[in-house]
Amino acid sequence: MNEFQLIRKYFSNLSKSNKASLNLNDDVFFDKSKRLVISVDTYVEGTHFLNFRKPELVIKKIIRSSISDIICKGVKPKFYFISGSGNKKSFSYSNLSKITKSLKQEQKKYNISLCGGDTVFSNKLSFTITTLGFSNKIILRNNTKLNDDIYVTGNLGDSFAGLNILKKKFNVNKNLKKYFVSKYYMPNLYLKLTDDLLSFANSSIDISDGLISDLEKLINKQKFSYKLELGSIPISKNLKKMISLKRLNKKNFVSQGDDYQILFTANSSKSRIIKKTSNFLGIKISKIGKICSHLLDNEIIDQKGKKISLKNKGYSHKF
Amino acid sequence: MNEFQLIRKYFSNLSKSNKASLNLNDDVFFDKSKRLVISVDTYVEGTHFLNFRKPELVIKKIIRSSISDIICKGVKPKFYFISGSGNKKSFSYSNLSKITKSLKQEQKKYNISLCGGDTVFSNKLSFTITTLGFSNKIILRNNTKLNDDIYVTGNLGDSFAGLNILKKKFNVNKNLKKYFVSKYYMPNLYLKLTDDLLSFANSSIDISDGLISDLEKLINKQKFSYKLELGSIPISKNLKKMISLKRLNKKNFVSQGDDYQILFTANSSKSRIIKKTSNFLGIKISKIGKICSHLLDNEIIDQKGKKISLKNKGYSHKF
Repeated sequence: MNEFQLIRKYFSNLSKSNKASLNLNDDVFFDKSKRLVISVDTYVEGTHFLNFRKPELVIKKIIRSSISDIICKGVKPKFYFISGSGNKKSFSYSNLSKITKSLKQEQKKYNISLCGGDTVFSNKLSFTITTLGFSNKIILRNNTKLNDDIYVTGNLGDSFAGLNILKKKFNVNKNLKKYFVSKYYMPNLYLKLTDDLLSFANSSIDISDGLISDLEKLINKQKFSYKLELGSIPISKNLKKMISLKRLNKKNFVSQGDDYQILFTANSSKSRIIKKTSNFLGIKISKIGKICSHLLDNEIIDQKGKKISLKNKGYSHKF
Repeated sequence: MNEFQLIRKYFSNLSKSNKASLNLNDDVFFDKSKRLVISVDTYVEGTHFLNFRKPELVIKKIIRSSISDIICKGVKPKFYFISGSGNKKSFSYSNLSKITKSLKQEQKKYNISLCGGDTVFSNKLSFTITTLGFSNKIILRNNTKLNDDIYVTGNLGDSFAGLNILKKKFNVNKNLKKYFVSKYYMPNLYLKLTDDLLSFANSSIDISDGLISDLEKLINKQKFSYKLELGSIPISKNLKKMISLKRLNKKNFVSQGDDYQILFTANSSKSRIIKKTSNFLGIKISKIGKICSHLLDNEIIDQKGKKISLKNKGYSHKF
């Protein structure tokens, strides 16, 4: 049983009377009458980040991955709380200085402000981030419509390449290493896209667990299928380069998670305005597939029209 | 450097522009314009609770200790988020059933509702609870006035006795064990006191770290001293009994923390209405001392008028 099924089975009953919980079936809590959007996420060393050798980068990764939950719903994050559990070494004065400096930079970049938190002693390092935004409208999951186009922002796979370089599974030159590792720690988030996203997206999610895994969550309660084209799934020039140099396979990179790109669906009539917005804001937005009838099978098609499977469906916190 | 100084030194700068953070000098975040009160707390096995052999009780303890932060500010908690990090054993189906059952009972008892959360894998068990309430007014720390009376709700020391019985440091009969252990896991919270508290308290805090430690936090930025009378500090009949049976010393029990009673100050003109409220609601409220000029020393006086010190000033999460 994975996290998703586990939450549904044991906890959804506890939130039944409370509409704002969205049946625990979204990444956020949304109370329309109070204009309140909240997301809570926990990050454990060794599971959600490799190690704490670069606290200044780990902090950026977890802050971005947290506010990404709110941004992908079309809402600007405003406040955050950080709770850290760790030992003396993790929270040494030198590390605390680095953490504070990074938080300051992220606050400026994303216009967010620290509201509180907690530091407790533990031998295992972990952080819980609570993020708040304010809006009377958000983009939900499970609101895709038949024949919606499926879109994704930015590029996929860079973060997974970075993780594997850090794990010394690939050996690349200094420039490529710098590029991929920075994508692992500092995914691009598109704060300025939120208002437009609200206007054209029917349904949205951020890609944390992996393209396929998150797409299936996006439509989990709907009787639909999807069709994706591998050729349309956006990857960076650097990833293209590495894949060709190392004779690797694109399909093994695009559904591994930790991308923090926005996956959304929109009516095909929105195609032009989405293209315009993309050009105007300078944000790459790619059409990668379509929402289809549940009578069809889910399909991912390669450049030759051949059906393939993206073996790794992303990360799931299994118990 | 303790948690308190640590937070102040490294993080208060990050919340400067944000009035609602209360300079990170309170247990809650309060945004008056949005009527929003939030508290975030992390609980680690071995530090904040002894072990997870009784998940159904541990969950009650951490839920109560979390909502206590909001209740002591004169606000009713409404929503909560729970994030658990743990292994397969901690989150076995049997434990999840027990956790869910306890959450359901607490929801009913305190009129709160689950809004979301996260479950992640970790070898070290910990929980982070985010609690929300809604109010346009709260009782702050650092708002005591010269000559304010100092009050505390309920009894102190029962939880500490329970902890020591669980640790097998005291051996008591079955009934006493049951009583103290239940106080350790399930402190009484006074939800129905919130509105009255708002009307008469100048300043308040809940006692989690210990009477003296929390009293000093309550007035940490103010130039005041305090005078307490040991004889007036309320303890239960059962604790009195155990202390006399075992020839223990009251002063070693009343400032050890984990009491989750409300410590507040009020003008002496409120004395009558506080007594009336206490009688009407059936909630024990004891006057235990006075806020004095900073020219005097902090003083704790025993029944014979002799100055004593409460050696243990409570728990501080030192790094």
